Amino acid sequence: MGKLVLLRHGESVWNAEGLFTGWVDVDLSPTGEAEARKGGELLAEAGIRPKVVHTSVLKRAIRTANIALDAADLHWLPVERSWRLNERHYGALQGKDKAQTREEYGEEQFMVWRRSYDTPPPPIADDDPYSQHGDPRYADLPPELMPRTECLADVVDRMLPYWYDAIVPELAAGGTVLVAAHGNSLRALVKHLDGISDEAIAGLNIPTGIPLVYELNDDFTPRKAGGEYLDPEAAKDAIEAVKNQGKK
Amino acid sequence: MGKLVLLRHGESVWNAEGLFTGWVDVDLSPTGEAEARKGGELLAEAGIRPKVVHTSVLKRAIRTANIALDAADLHWLPVERSWRLNERHYGALQGKDKAQTREEYGEEQFMVWRRSYDTPPPPIADDDPYSQHGDPRYADLPPELMPRTECLADVVDRMLPYWYDAIVPELAAGGTVLVAAHGNSLRALVKHLDGISDEAIAGLNIPTGIPLVYELNDDFTPRKAGGEYLDPEAAKDAIEAVKNQGKK
Repeated sequence: MGKLVLLRHGESVWNAEGLFTGWVDVDLSPTGEAEARKGGELLAEAGIRPKVVHTSVLKRAIRTANIALDAADLHWLPVERSWRLNERHYGALQGKDKAQTREEYGEEQFMVWRRSYDTPPPPIADDDPYSQHGDPRYADLPPELMPRTECLADVVDRMLPYWYDAIVPELAAGGTVLVAAHGNSLRALVKHLDGISDEAIAGLNIPTGIPLVYELNDDFTPRKAGGEYLDPEAAKDAIEAVKNQGKK
Repeated sequence: MGKLVLLRHGESVWNAEGLFTGWVDVDLSPTGEAEARKGGELLAEAGIRPKVVHTSVLKRAIRTANIALDAADLHWLPVERSWRLNERHYGALQGKDKAQTREEYGEEQFMVWRRSYDTPPPPIADDDPYSQHGDPRYADLPPELMPRTECLADVVDRMLPYWYDAIVPELAAGGTVLVAAHGNSLRALVKHLDGISDEAIAGLNIPTGIPLVYELNDDFTPRKAGGEYLDPEAAKDAIEAVKNQGKK
């Protein structure tokens, strides 16, 4: 049975500015590039050599993979991309300031949008400057698949087909698989792997740039719940930092 | 019928130093990175949006594709990699200084190794520091496929199966296909496309970083022999510069 390695992209320009990003195709910040490099170095130090790499179709995950693989001298690995690994679509909140949104709508509504399992933010309008309506990378998506907003439950639903169809067969073939993606698409996957409840998933944060390794049983359940971070100390610190996002 | 776009990687560190490179995995020089960016800008200006990108498994072609696609905001395109698109294996010459080799072996032998269609350089020894023996990216290649040296005829032989099996079906499906590769793997492809003779191919140079576009007929022959460079003036100048390589 293969090994699953999850890598959340490093800090993006909008993470740094405290804006809701979702499907907006924001680039990594210099800090994010450094995190990606560090992630690649951790892979190399651990002697992990994936057979294949999966990314979302968003630049911050793609560049995280490119930079990490370059640092690990694994730039030549085959790579597959899917919108199903994209970040959660943040609906009408995309492009909005997190702290300002918290102030405007109050702590309770803010936390529902950020952490409720099944309540999505209001949908984004097609003519919103931060809508992905008409983006050529989604040209093959029929309208009923193209989200205008998503809660985490929606992300689980659209991510799982990719897990089953694209990733599981490669793990079954014995290969190590690297998935470079986003906070919420990876939370959706970890929720599934570790059997985390709809309530408990709200408390789970995945740090950026630190590879999270799952050894799997024959039935694709984790040998160890929660997997293992390649740098556990740094992961602990980073999880705390993510928790404090949006607080000023 | 789809459109074929060929992109030769920008200057590598060893191009700049005048060394034979072949399968040695040398990175782009800063000039090469700038060429790749320019190549991406030319694609964007021409409104060319490939359905898929093919690269070799060598860093200078992979990074050329990554940088060009980033510049064209096309980082999200699906990408496929194959050793069949690699540069010609330069055998025992890999890592050697071009000007010094010319001096040591004489102009005639030098030009035979560089430009003869069917005479490869001496094979590289497995324990040569510039051999790819044991390189994990070729772990799935049976020994009879793993070259120790190649002439251009050998490159044609190992490249064509990839053209027929991986690229032609995508063109037949109507997609534009971008191939980011190397001087000699692209010469091999152009030789096939334009039906260039074994003798005449010696005189053909493909400039770096300037996309070369082939519109194709239904039988996959070029509508216009030689295709069209997106920046024809720059291509003319660059072809001259390549001709003078190894001259001091």
